[in-house]
Amino acid sequence: MSRIHRFTGEASNMNWEHAVHRAYDRDGVVGARGSVMISPADGAQHFLFRYYHVLPGGNTMLEDHAHDHGVMVLHGHATVRLGEETHEVGPQDIVYISPWEVHQFHAVGNEPFGFLCVIPNKDMLAKLLAAAN
Amino acid sequence: MSRIHRFTGEASNMNWEHAVHRAYDRDGVVGARGSVMISPADGAQHFLFRYYHVLPGGNTMLEDHAHDHGVMVLHGHATVRLGEETHEVGPQDIVYISPWEVHQFHAVGNEPFGFLCVIPNKDMLAKLLAAAN
Repeated sequence: MSRIHRFTGEASNMNWEHAVHRAYDRDGVVGARGSVMISPADGAQHFLFRYYHVLPGGNTMLEDHAHDHGVMVLHGHATVRLGEETHEVGPQDIVYISPWEVHQFHAVGNEPFGFLCVIPNKDMLAKLLAAAN
Repeated sequence: MSRIHRFTGEASNMNWEHAVHRAYDRDGVVGARGSVMISPADGAQHFLFRYYHVLPGGNTMLEDHAHDHGVMVLHGHATVRLGEETHEVGPQDIVYISPWEVHQFHAVGNEPFGFLCVIPNKDMLAKLLAAAN
């Protein structure tokens, strides 16, 4: 079914109706948490919409994996590691993170860093991989 | 490859590095245009990031199709038709539009309406459909 997730948050602390909050307690993560907006709970089979909030000085996990990410910065500033390179990003910048690219965000400055992170649905990826084999 | 699309636009007229602009001349469309940011040109196989800009009083196409959409309003206000229902949406609202849902946006108010529209890659959808048959 289609569904609207109305914005209910603030400019540097975003939230939406029906968002599911996650602790994001993973190795090396500092001061970060996540939410899931569009998900299979909406009937979405192909992708998820997630929001990550990183406190000043905090960071996401250093990781690489088979799925890619589409990121749009919603507030604040960060450095993003992409493989061996590091770049600064700010509001409305869009980052495509390809499969198996090592990546990590570090919030910089005095404001929380927040971004939309689109990820393909894992079940969908599993079907694609099965079809390719 | 990973790629950053830096924001180069304005609050109500957004643009990004490496964005590909489209006329969006389709049946019934009024005062709207589109851009593609994340695409196969980035190596993205699973989804696309697109931006649509609708002038005050304008609208997108009334349509339904096999793929779904993930939408985040970036500026302005609109009504969105979802099947037989119509809702008002504004900045930061997120809309999941399920497959085969009839949908259309009408910009309301005096400001242009702009939104991020995520769509699964058609080639990926074709593979999924082939795997399902």
